[in-house]
Amino acid sequence: MIIEAKLAELGIDLPEAPAPVAAYQPWIRAGNLIFTSGQLPFRNGEISYAGKLGAELSNEDGYQAARQAALNAIAHIKSATGDLDKVKTIIRIEGYVHCAEGFRDHPQVLNGASDLIAEIFGDRGIHTRLALGINEMPLNAAVQLAMIVEVAD
Amino acid sequence: MIIEAKLAELGIDLPEAPAPVAAYQPWIRAGNLIFTSGQLPFRNGEISYAGKLGAELSNEDGYQAARQAALNAIAHIKSATGDLDKVKTIIRIEGYVHCAEGFRDHPQVLNGASDLIAEIFGDRGIHTRLALGINEMPLNAAVQLAMIVEVAD
Amino acid sequence: MIIEAKLAELGIDLPEAPAPVAAYQPWIRAGNLIFTSGQLPFRNGEISYAGKLGAELSNEDGYQAARQAALNAIAHIKSATGDLDKVKTIIRIEGYVHCAEGFRDHPQVLNGASDLIAEIFGDRGIHTRLALGINEMPLNAAVQLAMIVEVAD
Repeated sequence: MIIEAKLAELGIDLPEAPAPVAAYQPWIRAGNLIFTSGQLPFRNGEISYAGKLGAELSNEDGYQAARQAALNAIAHIKSATGDLDKVKTIIRIEGYVHCAEGFRDHPQVLNGASDLIAEIFGDRGIHTRLALGINEMPLNAAVQLAMIVEVAD
Repeated sequence: MIIEAKLAELGIDLPEAPAPVAAYQPWIRAGNLIFTSGQLPFRNGEISYAGKLGAELSNEDGYQAARQAALNAIAHIKSATGDLDKVKTIIRIEGYVHCAEGFRDHPQVLNGASDLIAEIFGDRGIHTRLALGINEMPLNAAVQLAMIVEVAD
Repeated sequence: MIIEAKLAELGIDLPEAPAPVAAYQPWIRAGNLIFTSGQLPFRNGEISYAGKLGAELSNEDGYQAARQAALNAIAHIKSATGDLDKVKTIIRIEGYVHCAEGFRDHPQVLNGASDLIAEIFGDRGIHTRLALGINEMPLNAAVQLAMIVEVAD
């Protein structure tokens, strides 16, 4: 239980894996790959950061939103694996930032997810990333984040 | 021919798989995964729903556009497999909604694809989903939709 | 060294693989798949085409930006494989075009990547594609491009 011990050491309680907002699944496993659905920064059933970066929200808000969405993704990956030690590689983080005209700091915002992944998974958390700006987001959420993960057999 | 029988029962005629709009392929198989290109709501060679959600188009228009794009994706998956019964899992639907300022109903629009997949594929149609707003879309299409599918050996 | 010979014949020098702009990796291999991070049109450490299509930038600028981003992706795939002849299939190109209101020519812009891939990889370069408009892009880059590639064992 290496990763669980790490979570305890970091003082991180994984949230309840949030339910999808429509007719789809939070994760699917195909072979050794797990795909999560796009995660919003839900916390206790509510969007914790609503609005646009470069308008109502600060970069620090965005960073925390990305961290929250990543926590939700990790909660789903725990559901999918039963044991986070089975995670071999975080292959890919797809990060979409809800932003206003002229916003450029997508990388800093998405580091909220990347830093969390590095803290929890260490070498197994090295990942590729997409960082994109989105004009309008479901539920007015600050970010949306999806992960593709490789698990051991 | 379970899925073909289901299509007949639902009264669904799969369209001719539409040609790409530039220099790329409609689908690629790699191992047990099939990736489709981004599908637009083509019907009989024309974009059936053009414009933006939250502006010229209603949510019902968007729902129908997502359904049409999903039909086109399924037509390509039939080309790729020869037989839709070989589909093991619809892993992922990536849904991009062409939308105006303030639009929030991406999930309802993309249910046009998710509901169709559920009707046709039943348990094998459970999927993960991304739902994103896009400021400008090729050919002014209402939606773009890509699928990743797992097939049996 | 078929692909290296092809690069020489085409007069293409692959660039130094550019470093990521934040805390993530340029590529990850999982099984026979290689995923690249989103590539920007970096050239000699600078964004070669900054701004929006349909505003400051012409379609030809966008075409060249997509070509440059694709070159950077191929440089990373060379790092990942050691030898580009190990590339079996370019499975997918995800193309995001930084664009202004009313822009419609995403396919023409992304042909800058697709044409390059076809020149270099021939039959192995046939790929699926997503073509999406993005309101705001990291570093004001004209395009962002990610690839998923299948390699031989």
